Amino acid sequence: APKFVTSSRAAVSMHFPPINESVDKGNPKVVTTVKCEDIKGKGVYCRCWRSKTFPNCDASHVKWNEERGDNVGPLIVMAAKPAE
Amino acid sequence: APKFVTSSRAAVSMHFPPINESVDKGNPKVVTTVKCEDIKGKGVYCRCWRSKTFPNCDASHVKWNEERGDNVGPLIVMAAKPAE
Repeated sequence: APKFVTSSRAAVSMHFPPINESVDKGNPKVVTTVKCEDIKGKGVYCRCWRSKTFPNCDASHVKWNEERGDNVGPLIVMAAKPAE
Repeated sequence: APKFVTSSRAAVSMHFPPINESVDKGNPKVVTTVKCEDIKGKGVYCRCWRSKTFPNCDASHVKWNEERGDNVGPLIVMAAKPAE
């Protein structure tokens, strides 16, 4: 019988899916840099890679956690309080 | 023949693994808050959920990306430059 041959990459991704399914997949490593002085009040940053406003959180983790029984959530960065 | 019954949660986690396998799994949602005034120079924060120094990045994403054909990387937060 013909052997069912999958490329190792396909086999890997089929059985062990990546964390990031769709963000900037042409980029070998998605690193985001933000500056504290650009943050107004606070910045909420996605760590579930499902946000439609990535790198910012849009609460997509809520649906993900429900569907997958996961417990991921965002990173919140509080801007420094302006000197009084 | 006996029906092979798995709990839906087990079935979900077997076929669709969570992003977070081991960080603070007793917590329903792992949200991390950091303050800009506490960041010295820059903070590098994990988004692959494999870091042994979570929430900080320890480059675990390199191994993950190689094994999974993924492209996740950290969030870098640059502290505000001190006023000169």
